[in-house]
Amino acid sequence: MPGIKITTAGESHGQALVGIIEGLPSNMPLSAGDIDAELSRRQMGYGRGGRMKIESDKAEILTGIRWGKTLGSPIAIKITNKDWANWSKGMSISTEDEGSIEAVTRPRPGHADLAGAAKYGFKDIRNVLERSSARETTARVAIGAVCKRFLCEFDIFIGSFVTSIGDIQASTLPHSLGSAELLDLFKEAEKSPVRTPETEASERMALSIDKAKETGDTLGGTFVVFAVNVPVGLGSHIQWDRKLDGRLAQAVMSIQAVKGVETGMGFNAAALNGSQAMDEIFYNKPETGQFGFYRKTNNAGGIEGGMVRVCCKENHFGHRPVEPWPRLVYHL
Amino acid sequence: MPGIKITTAGESHGQALVGIIEGLPSNMPLSAGDIDAELSRRQMGYGRGGRMKIESDKAEILTGIRWGKTLGSPIAIKITNKDWANWSKGMSISTEDEGSIEAVTRPRPGHADLAGAAKYGFKDIRNVLERSSARETTARVAIGAVCKRFLCEFDIFIGSFVTSIGDIQASTLPHSLGSAELLDLFKEAEKSPVRTPETEASERMALSIDKAKETGDTLGGTFVVFAVNVPVGLGSHIQWDRKLDGRLAQAVMSIQAVKGVETGMGFNAAALNGSQAMDEIFYNKPETGQFGFYRKTNNAGGIEGGMVRVCCKENHFGHRPVEPWPRLVYHL
Amino acid sequence: MPGIKITTAGESHGQALVGIIEGLPSNMPLSAGDIDAELSRRQMGYGRGGRMKIESDKAEILTGIRWGKTLGSPIAIKITNKDWANWSKGMSISTEDEGSIEAVTRPRPGHADLAGAAKYGFKDIRNVLERSSARETTARVAIGAVCKRFLCEFDIFIGSFVTSIGDIQASTLPHSLGSAELLDLFKEAEKSPVRTPETEASERMALSIDKAKETGDTLGGTFVVFAVNVPVGLGSHIQWDRKLDGRLAQAVMSIQAVKGVETGMGFNAAALNGSQAMDEIFYNKPETGQFGFYRKTNNAGGIEGGMVRVCCKENHFGHRPVEPWPRLVYHL
Amino acid sequence: MPGIKITTAGESHGQALVGIIEGLPSNMPLSAGDIDAELSRRQMGYGRGGRMKIESDKAEILTGIRWGKTLGSPIAIKITNKDWANWSKGMSISTEDEGSIEAVTRPRPGHADLAGAAKYGFKDIRNVLERSSARETTARVAIGAVCKRFLCEFDIFIGSFVTSIGDIQASTLPHSLGSAELLDLFKEAEKSPVRTPETEASERMALSIDKAKETGDTLGGTFVVFAVNVPVGLGSHIQWDRKLDGRLAQAVMSIQAVKGVETGMGFNAAALNGSQAMDEIFYNKPETGQFGFYRKTNNAGGIEGGMVRVCCKENHFGHRPVEPWPRLVYHL
Repeated sequence: MPGIKITTAGESHGQALVGIIEGLPSNMPLSAGDIDAELSRRQMGYGRGGRMKIESDKAEILTGIRWGKTLGSPIAIKITNKDWANWSKGMSISTEDEGSIEAVTRPRPGHADLAGAAKYGFKDIRNVLERSSARETTARVAIGAVCKRFLCEFDIFIGSFVTSIGDIQASTLPHSLGSAELLDLFKEAEKSPVRTPETEASERMALSIDKAKETGDTLGGTFVVFAVNVPVGLGSHIQWDRKLDGRLAQAVMSIQAVKGVETGMGFNAAALNGSQAMDEIFYNKPETGQFGFYRKTNNAGGIEGGMVRVCCKENHFGHRPVEPWPRLVYHL
Repeated sequence: MPGIKITTAGESHGQALVGIIEGLPSNMPLSAGDIDAELSRRQMGYGRGGRMKIESDKAEILTGIRWGKTLGSPIAIKITNKDWANWSKGMSISTEDEGSIEAVTRPRPGHADLAGAAKYGFKDIRNVLERSSARETTARVAIGAVCKRFLCEFDIFIGSFVTSIGDIQASTLPHSLGSAELLDLFKEAEKSPVRTPETEASERMALSIDKAKETGDTLGGTFVVFAVNVPVGLGSHIQWDRKLDGRLAQAVMSIQAVKGVETGMGFNAAALNGSQAMDEIFYNKPETGQFGFYRKTNNAGGIEGGMVRVCCKENHFGHRPVEPWPRLVYHL
Repeated sequence: MPGIKITTAGESHGQALVGIIEGLPSNMPLSAGDIDAELSRRQMGYGRGGRMKIESDKAEILTGIRWGKTLGSPIAIKITNKDWANWSKGMSISTEDEGSIEAVTRPRPGHADLAGAAKYGFKDIRNVLERSSARETTARVAIGAVCKRFLCEFDIFIGSFVTSIGDIQASTLPHSLGSAELLDLFKEAEKSPVRTPETEASERMALSIDKAKETGDTLGGTFVVFAVNVPVGLGSHIQWDRKLDGRLAQAVMSIQAVKGVETGMGFNAAALNGSQAMDEIFYNKPETGQFGFYRKTNNAGGIEGGMVRVCCKENHFGHRPVEPWPRLVYHL
Repeated sequence: MPGIKITTAGESHGQALVGIIEGLPSNMPLSAGDIDAELSRRQMGYGRGGRMKIESDKAEILTGIRWGKTLGSPIAIKITNKDWANWSKGMSISTEDEGSIEAVTRPRPGHADLAGAAKYGFKDIRNVLERSSARETTARVAIGAVCKRFLCEFDIFIGSFVTSIGDIQASTLPHSLGSAELLDLFKEAEKSPVRTPETEASERMALSIDKAKETGDTLGGTFVVFAVNVPVGLGSHIQWDRKLDGRLAQAVMSIQAVKGVETGMGFNAAALNGSQAMDEIFYNKPETGQFGFYRKTNNAGGIEGGMVRVCCKENHFGHRPVEPWPRLVYHL
């Protein structure tokens, strides 16, 4: 029963997107600005359609916050669709507006269209695509911004950057990097229109996108998400559904268009010997002043046995111990 | 509240592994033999240690079955550890046996050992490794066998085969295949000591394993899991945690040693244009006698928008409609 | 995973109350009017404070409905607090408005005030009482109205009436009544300002309330909730948390100010012999034309073994069989 | 995801009852004796049938404990049915034994028999009654014993006693008592064959049972469950399903034969004025040496707003603060 619960609602061209997060502690500072900053990052992206510009999403916090701080009660966030005026009949809740726009009858491959219409019994595919749209992630980003603010309390930071678009690959091998290097890459990526940390690759990726657009095509790609300063032991080995890597894999795979998830070296480890893929454990004796266990590699992506391990190559055991956790969960 | 719930328990060298599955319908035929067949498949595997031979696991169904049929009540399965006699003191529940075997103090990379000992506060790493061991999958396989029996009622079949071990790759591209071809590959793989469908690759993989063993090393690998005859619409696009691909990704990633999950073409799609990766939708008019929508490719792995779509390239829309589902869930 | 999920958010004097319901089937008719009718019933009540009149709640359906029908996606409902204008600073989300109204420092007995302030670490008790207020039930009533509309599809009707206020008791013994009688009592109660079905008792209850108000006091009371036409077998005996009576008890006890829950004869059965409390099972042979099992009493409140049984005294087995259920749950 | 999960399995005359509890901390002492003591208390009871004597239940801890301490992994407990030898064919899992005992075809009122057979599609009512039997509580008691051991770590104690059997009532009004008095009543009740704390009432209840048995009848009754030393703030007001009173009501109502649940004064409060039913809050200034808030009554049963409040009449605010909780939940 305890724990954080998240739910979202909303159609792509409906009145609004809504998210509710329940179970956060009280007295945590939170402002609409914290959320808008992430909504704004979501709306960037090279070569994206006109829709992204229309949007300019703003979070309206309806509940759960008073005078800049959480009440411990559920936080409901509403993001009004900016072009709602153009859709107020086509997506109206009223039977009176039925038929005011034409039905979508041509299913698109790669989308929920065909399976959704069959399952839910619709002749108008719009009744599926409005919810299956990647626009839905707006509410997830808003709630995610609240979660990022929460993780801040523990100095945990979640970052990301793009590693390939089409056949252009950045040279980075993120699983070999330490926290400081990852944070640098994130900062570099924030400046790139394609969110990749390397200038030359960034330019070539942008060109690739231009070329694909000319022919009315799109491009695939890959990205990295990382977390720094996560306490050792988050997750658990005791039951399949408490394993952190499994839970992260679900979260990532549930994003529209994602078709694969790896931790650390991922599929590249498949062709290696165990001795090459594993991250050997080293130990400094107390008298060295560099106390504890550490690793020189991070092929495992910082997770072993479904738990956060001593994460990054330079971190020592004890650097981020389990003690902070109780603070997170005292609202039993 | 309704729905199927699964829980497992048990240590690698403890008295027994236990699994409970709750929420299956009544009057479904089930025998211990159905489970033992899968436990036996689990114990095969080229180059595995002596432990696998000792095991020879047998399922003891303790509850939920009477006279060969399900009662609708929870089914509890116990698999006694065959070498329990050798561990009855070392893994005893009694304080009297404390210290009867030496503590494990050397953490292994790639395992829960270090993070688990830190999180759960143990000096003896055995207190972690006994549960984090892949031996735990025995209970998952037993419960999975019950689920496979259940899916049988709907003519759904789950199969799998190995596609690479170390740097030896089978030539198969499973996401381009239809149901019949997948089933053939599964049958071939069942004959191979390394569970791969191609004879030559199978031999080379076995040699690779031998060579790695000689140097005390292990090898990575990849495998495919497929399901045939799954009804269109299983899963849902309406909320992130109902998406079938996300749920499958969690289940697969939670298996010990798995570091990556893909659906269909997976990461290979990242380097392609959208037009190359998508599975175009075709349509036969009713008068052709070949009614309905169909695909010629299956790059998406049979899932679009978080739902099962018209799965395999030869399947037509309507071949496996939503009607069977109510039978599954009438125990609201 | 499948199944219906409900979450609510909102403070008593905040901007709005919000509810989200997820997991309903598609193509079910639903209008804001369906919800407003129940919100309006919630606002009646003899002797209630001025707040109830200010409210005049209206549901704004933000998501999940198009052209009068459900999309199968989550339905988010917002009910704006009508007096928000007066509270927009006192309950503002902005730090700028901090201190704009005085803190509540005097905890009220019978409320969350004292325990909530201690647990969540507040000096201003308003930070607790705004969420713990019975105003929160507005969102539950709105979501409940959607559920009632859903149950309509199965001809299930949920009704209620007041059986006592203070020491004035209506003479009704609801557990001895059949569906038709219960529906009549409900209709009578709808006309009474105190929602009790008996005219004389209604008048005496109103007088009691007047008298208590004069002395600044309040009165306790009891009420009955019933459901007619519920299919046999809803709920289950197979696990403690699937038992319908347990789940109903939780739902009722979670309403503000409720301190007890009974099914059927409830605590009155405690002083009786088993032979007096049980509802004997009778059986008509097929040739009578009155086929099946039936009861002459309903002391058990229509639930046996955690499931709906042949409910009302006049109902025969088979009158409401299990067949309708699959329709409810085909969105696996 | 985090939190404690409980599941049980087992038929009344099957091979065994099984319970699994997951999510307890590591390094907590636990022995089979801790569980057997509660199983033994469950088997007492005046006037109970021969079955209770046969049983003499013993817990077999299969997993989750090593050398007398919890591993943090799931704890599976098996209680073998002592008369299994007599039922090994009648309740066999094998189809070979089908028909070895006669079907039960006469449904009993007050039991799951009729609704269960209809819902689950059985001709032999035994297929329902074996699971719906109160024998199922054996596994709940075993798991409950583990929970009681856990609560011990926080000096929390759960006790109970009988307050009426048939028309014989003990004179106790438990909601007016403090912790010390409740513990005394519990101790007295442990000595009584009918588990009531008053000697004279105990004797009269026993006689009542004898008389009912003579006529082949049974008697109803009421009992009190209390907890002492529970920390202020357990539960929450923020969502209906986190309210502690609602969750307790579900747990109690899910016990076989229970038809009503109250907290504190319960239904007796319905006939009172608010001023009579509420527990006025008093306050001692720090300089008195009797610091803090307190109550002189406990009509609310120690729960306000869905949370544990300053519980008992003599307790002062701060006596049992929220600080202990983090220790419970550090296995996030």
